[in-house]
Amino acid sequence: MKSDPRIEQALGRAIEPGELSGCPPRLAAAIRYAVFPGGARIRPRICLAVAQACGEDHPGVVDAALASIELLHCASLVHDDLPCFDDAATRRGKPSVHRAYDERLAVLAGDAMIVLALESLADGCAAAPARLPALLRIIGRAVGTAGGIVAGQAWECEPRSVLAQYQQAKTGSLFAAATMAGAAATGAADAQAWSLLGERIGEAYQVADDILDVAGNASEIGKPVGRDAALGRPSAVAQLGMAGAIALVQRLVSEAAASVPDCLGIDALRAVIRAQAEALLPRDRLQAA
Amino acid sequence: MKSDPRIEQALGRAIEPGELSGCPPRLAAAIRYAVFPGGARIRPRICLAVAQACGEDHPGVVDAALASIELLHCASLVHDDLPCFDDAATRRGKPSVHRAYDERLAVLAGDAMIVLALESLADGCAAAPARLPALLRIIGRAVGTAGGIVAGQAWECEPRSVLAQYQQAKTGSLFAAATMAGAAATGAADAQAWSLLGERIGEAYQVADDILDVAGNASEIGKPVGRDAALGRPSAVAQLGMAGAIALVQRLVSEAAASVPDCLGIDALRAVIRAQAEALLPRDRLQAA
Repeated sequence: MKSDPRIEQALGRAIEPGELSGCPPRLAAAIRYAVFPGGARIRPRICLAVAQACGEDHPGVVDAALASIELLHCASLVHDDLPCFDDAATRRGKPSVHRAYDERLAVLAGDAMIVLALESLADGCAAAPARLPALLRIIGRAVGTAGGIVAGQAWECEPRSVLAQYQQAKTGSLFAAATMAGAAATGAADAQAWSLLGERIGEAYQVADDILDVAGNASEIGKPVGRDAALGRPSAVAQLGMAGAIALVQRLVSEAAASVPDCLGIDALRAVIRAQAEALLPRDRLQAA
Repeated sequence: MKSDPRIEQALGRAIEPGELSGCPPRLAAAIRYAVFPGGARIRPRICLAVAQACGEDHPGVVDAALASIELLHCASLVHDDLPCFDDAATRRGKPSVHRAYDERLAVLAGDAMIVLALESLADGCAAAPARLPALLRIIGRAVGTAGGIVAGQAWECEPRSVLAQYQQAKTGSLFAAATMAGAAATGAADAQAWSLLGERIGEAYQVADDILDVAGNASEIGKPVGRDAALGRPSAVAQLGMAGAIALVQRLVSEAAASVPDCLGIDALRAVIRAQAEALLPRDRLQAA
């Protein structure tokens, strides 16, 4: 999928403070390395699509929201790749941050990206400051301890975890934040109504990721395959089989499209959802299913 | 120094979301372990003292600001203690978080505390939401890449660093944020005017920490001594000698007291600054100096 210049520029602006005077050069370089070039940028694309469907009046606020969400996603990848977690040698087709720099800079780059992601909302909302509290709450909760990304990763450190709860926290939460933040960035009063859309897309994405881990090609997806089985991690393919997992993705995408709240651009938004879902799965498997 | 129940309660409220449903129990426990019992709580005490000197009208906003600052300090300690940095076995007289739990939970607890610290400002400012943007900027910048704590730690990963820049970023920045946030939490328009006070206190504190690392007693200060020399870290004692370092602390505290901007409670605030400074140094060394 072609990169969206608006998303790339918004991310560039969000990490800019990291490259001003006062930032150690290797830290600034590690942050830029972790953010560019990106992966599919699915979360910011969804955030932007929702904002456009709602009718965005302050593009700067939307840019800040989508950049914040993608920075937090990138930060979580940097920390997930650390030796004490997945010890991943590669990410997005190049050495992981702790391999390209060192472990200390990987810890610090992740920390810095969390701070930048939340702090940059203050400047981003300058044109509509009344939207800041909702955006900060929505995005903060999506990565935090109560069902957010950090909680999701921490379920891997518990003796027992429930697959659905683990996936909802580790992946679904930030997708739900992407749709809710897209709405909140346009001043929508009921951002919560957009949560189900993000949750379903996130679930579909997580299951698709499990499928790619089994059926994908490392060079195409830019990371090693077979990691879930090797690390004994919960996986939808292990639980449902390949055909069951593919059917589940398709059902979740339909539910996502059906869940879109009434808005100006509802048809265009549904088309975006279906197009992005199709890009998630290995083509040959989809045809076989 | 006796703990301040108001500060402890504010911290308890700030980490509460981490203990609600959705948070893996070991993560919630690791966060609580990292925050309680605390150290000297110098930063939140200074923040509170400034707010009281300015005349606080919304105590909830002040509580959110001081808790945010202390949570970020605690988060930085958890990550600084990691094996890839200081590999500290103890902190505040008990095993460090990665020793008491494990390295993964130490990474995640630090991440979670950064998120909680910034996110909790949204709820904390509910009574005066117009103060949220300034507080988020002040506190975010103090821990970020442009001269904040993360930058300070990252100077340790550069081939060359300047002692003053390193200390300003690693310690001074959060002290400056404590005084500025104390003022901003009361709605003061010119929070920047309070920066110098925090910077001077932070510099004094950093030099005092270097002194304790040489002249302190591990059981009294709750962490191992002699680490700066062992790790080849920059230190004011190595640079100026012990007597020079002690004279520097005394000069910095005088400059701090002289820098207090005009406010309702200026005399009480100066007294607090002097009392806290005295508590920083080993008593026998002060008398000898």
